[in-house]
Amino acid sequence: MNGKVMEINCDLGEGFGRWKVADDRALMKHITTANIATGFHASDPVTMRETVKAAVDHGLQIGAHTGLPDLLGFGRRRLALSPQEMRDYNTYQIGALKAFVEAEGGEVAHVKPHGVMYFQAYEDDELAEAVFAAVAEIDSSMLVYWFDTGQQHLADKYGLTLIPEGFPDLQYDDHGMLVIERVKRSWAPEVVADRAAQITLDGRIETDSGRSIPIEAETLCLHGDSSSSPEVLRAVKERLLAEGVAVRAQRPPRR
Amino acid sequence: MNGKVMEINCDLGEGFGRWKVADDRALMKHITTANIATGFHASDPVTMRETVKAAVDHGLQIGAHTGLPDLLGFGRRRLALSPQEMRDYNTYQIGALKAFVEAEGGEVAHVKPHGVMYFQAYEDDELAEAVFAAVAEIDSSMLVYWFDTGQQHLADKYGLTLIPEGFPDLQYDDHGMLVIERVKRSWAPEVVADRAAQITLDGRIETDSGRSIPIEAETLCLHGDSSSSPEVLRAVKERLLAEGVAVRAQRPPRR
Amino acid sequence: MNGKVMEINCDLGEGFGRWKVADDRALMKHITTANIATGFHASDPVTMRETVKAAVDHGLQIGAHTGLPDLLGFGRRRLALSPQEMRDYNTYQIGALKAFVEAEGGEVAHVKPHGVMYFQAYEDDELAEAVFAAVAEIDSSMLVYWFDTGQQHLADKYGLTLIPEGFPDLQYDDHGMLVIERVKRSWAPEVVADRAAQITLDGRIETDSGRSIPIEAETLCLHGDSSSSPEVLRAVKERLLAEGVAVRAQRPPRR
Amino acid sequence: MNGKVMEINCDLGEGFGRWKVADDRALMKHITTANIATGFHASDPVTMRETVKAAVDHGLQIGAHTGLPDLLGFGRRRLALSPQEMRDYNTYQIGALKAFVEAEGGEVAHVKPHGVMYFQAYEDDELAEAVFAAVAEIDSSMLVYWFDTGQQHLADKYGLTLIPEGFPDLQYDDHGMLVIERVKRSWAPEVVADRAAQITLDGRIETDSGRSIPIEAETLCLHGDSSSSPEVLRAVKERLLAEGVAVRAQRPPRR
Repeated sequence: MNGKVMEINCDLGEGFGRWKVADDRALMKHITTANIATGFHASDPVTMRETVKAAVDHGLQIGAHTGLPDLLGFGRRRLALSPQEMRDYNTYQIGALKAFVEAEGGEVAHVKPHGVMYFQAYEDDELAEAVFAAVAEIDSSMLVYWFDTGQQHLADKYGLTLIPEGFPDLQYDDHGMLVIERVKRSWAPEVVADRAAQITLDGRIETDSGRSIPIEAETLCLHGDSSSSPEVLRAVKERLLAEGVAVRAQRPPRR
Repeated sequence: MNGKVMEINCDLGEGFGRWKVADDRALMKHITTANIATGFHASDPVTMRETVKAAVDHGLQIGAHTGLPDLLGFGRRRLALSPQEMRDYNTYQIGALKAFVEAEGGEVAHVKPHGVMYFQAYEDDELAEAVFAAVAEIDSSMLVYWFDTGQQHLADKYGLTLIPEGFPDLQYDDHGMLVIERVKRSWAPEVVADRAAQITLDGRIETDSGRSIPIEAETLCLHGDSSSSPEVLRAVKERLLAEGVAVRAQRPPRR
Repeated sequence: MNGKVMEINCDLGEGFGRWKVADDRALMKHITTANIATGFHASDPVTMRETVKAAVDHGLQIGAHTGLPDLLGFGRRRLALSPQEMRDYNTYQIGALKAFVEAEGGEVAHVKPHGVMYFQAYEDDELAEAVFAAVAEIDSSMLVYWFDTGQQHLADKYGLTLIPEGFPDLQYDDHGMLVIERVKRSWAPEVVADRAAQITLDGRIETDSGRSIPIEAETLCLHGDSSSSPEVLRAVKERLLAEGVAVRAQRPPRR
Repeated sequence: MNGKVMEINCDLGEGFGRWKVADDRALMKHITTANIATGFHASDPVTMRETVKAAVDHGLQIGAHTGLPDLLGFGRRRLALSPQEMRDYNTYQIGALKAFVEAEGGEVAHVKPHGVMYFQAYEDDELAEAVFAAVAEIDSSMLVYWFDTGQQHLADKYGLTLIPEGFPDLQYDDHGMLVIERVKRSWAPEVVADRAAQITLDGRIETDSGRSIPIEAETLCLHGDSSSSPEVLRAVKERLLAEGVAVRAQRPPRR
């Protein structure tokens, strides 16, 4: 063991009614932490119950994956929200998930906004604070997953800790920003595993121009919505373990 | 004082976005208890926050007014739900409201299903138990408002107490069932006050055929969505006070 | 050729935003007629445009597959509708589809309600007439696909023709009613092809008790939402052709 | 008569299910032209039918008032749409309204986007063309109501005519742009009538800084959602008539 610790988180429960996007149970074996959709960009109460149950069964850390009220756009279209709306949408969704998680014997350990809600909050301090306020007024011991810790001084006002994320299966530009493409580039499992190892061991990532830049990350986010996702997740986990990294949730649930 | 105690509850926060149904603050002065809509048949996160804040400010007991997922039908159209759906829809909505209420320094003291969800659960023991299970897994000290106590033996399985409601501004038939009409009959404030007093003092109500039948009621539900509602609520409260009745919530919030 | 003619119709375009249920283009090769979802139980404007375009490209007859306003339940949960609502929901959806179809150079040849809307209309003459009125006021030359022709006398009042459907991939009971199960029985392609041939050549179908009963059907509905659907569709079409049946739409589009 | 002609249009049918915003029939007496909401930012099929019927009864010109798919935000929050989405959302909504209007014996004479959809299309040529394409592929004889005629060269590509609108009950800045405030300024009926007369007779409007600027307007849009709206509408119409202006729709329906 090299003393390094890393978490693998994945967005889950992103179906809606009859529609599914992934075989969540196949993914859960390879991760430590589930960001569970809360009904605004995806999911519904029955899907939430099932996903929460499965996540508890798998001993995963659970977080609320809150989104914009845009099922049709899967929370990926910018929607001009006021800070009040941003706050209240988060309060509502976190509260709803918390009820399921506690009913199933777990606890909500963190909050991570989804898609464009995540970007909008990251880009606008007032909207970021709206998210932080919503989290803190429910339980300030919850962690907040964020792109980086540049807004930790704002989170401090609410007694919150930001956990910076790395995204081994997405592209970065030379400024360390994610490059979001309409059609996601699909890397081979070993490539993603390499990138995950880079982030974890070296604190660096290769950008789309081929440069290597520093990146802060205490958790790795991997996507579950492609057919190769289970294989990618397995490859990442095995690679990290082979490198002597302890693969562990930020807040492993008590058994 | 005659030792009698009665509660006046009202369904509030039943707007949606730009649309409103009532001037909730005008109603809050005359009641003890607010059933706050939770986003499925009506309301949205911003409306919920505002309504909860106002209810806390007015010192009202607060309950979750959960509904069917049918904004277009205002939760008043029968929708064939499975017990699992009934349970999970309640868990979701109660959890969401609880987050707002606790954030604003209050507590959710009770749950009362809305419209047809209320009827469907009342008519079907399995659906009733689905509601009870949802309430109990969140907090079995919450009260459940119900048409009568005929299903208390089912509630007992979940450690819950049913609080039977009387509806002075609705018509009853000779079997004690509510007569729901497309266009609500509008009674003069004094008539509703008379009926409220009948229920409270005599445990009886006059049916639409003119008979007087016994009715069990520990709380009175009055509707807030007509232009005369504030006047009706005031008349009922004044009449009860004039009769020596203590007008008080089941669970008055701690100040 | 034995002089027999049969149509193969399939419900298409039943995704919603990011969610899909089937690879519609793979299905289109094997059918004559597309029932295209219209945004209430499934689909959205962009999906409708894409599905319509593909159906026009494949030379398919196009119909409006109208549903209940219940995305979450995929239009499969009974919802108590008034005749006015039934009519207006159909008017709205047919009108919306018509705009896409005509923009893409096709025409709406028929209407077929989806899921529980289909059953509710079939079981209640007043609701059936509400559908017929909606169709007729838009264009009474459109065909109406229906379980059987028992309500043709009602359709006559609106100048409409009912086209009875057979469902080779569903079970029938001894009264000729469909047996809808939570988990659909999955028959081998040859079994479904056999059943399709039975309906087409003999006008009979085997029930779940093993009896053979008469069935009227001028069109065959096959489902596209299982992984074996393309194979099943191909098997049915090939079998009908092998039996000398002309596989043809009721209203083949003009080229 | 001074030979001047002006149209008075109003956005109508902007309720949703149980919720209403205005007494539309009270407004219809004073206008020539109804922009009828089509179910995305407001309205639903039953409301559309009722509004269309009433508009036909009142002999009004009817247009499709298309909006963003954001009931919760009443179509007033920017939503990042692709041109394809913009086009298809308009096709869908215009088609739906057209079915009701033609069923009731009228015709859709124009299209006018609502709220932020209107602004987004006006500000972005690609989105403007998406709207124009949707209108033209349904019926290029429909008029398109627009802030001004600056994009007529784009409309020309689709064979469409833009009709520039004036807004006597809204504020303008010195650049001729509308000043949209959270809480609308409420002008006395005579003030709005004065502004309507200014626009109609002089082709000028007073800005919020007190300057008078030129404005092109072939139709006047007045809002129906405040309690004084019927009075304002009456005042405007009477004032225009008193000034010798013919108050007439762009496309008066044939009787």
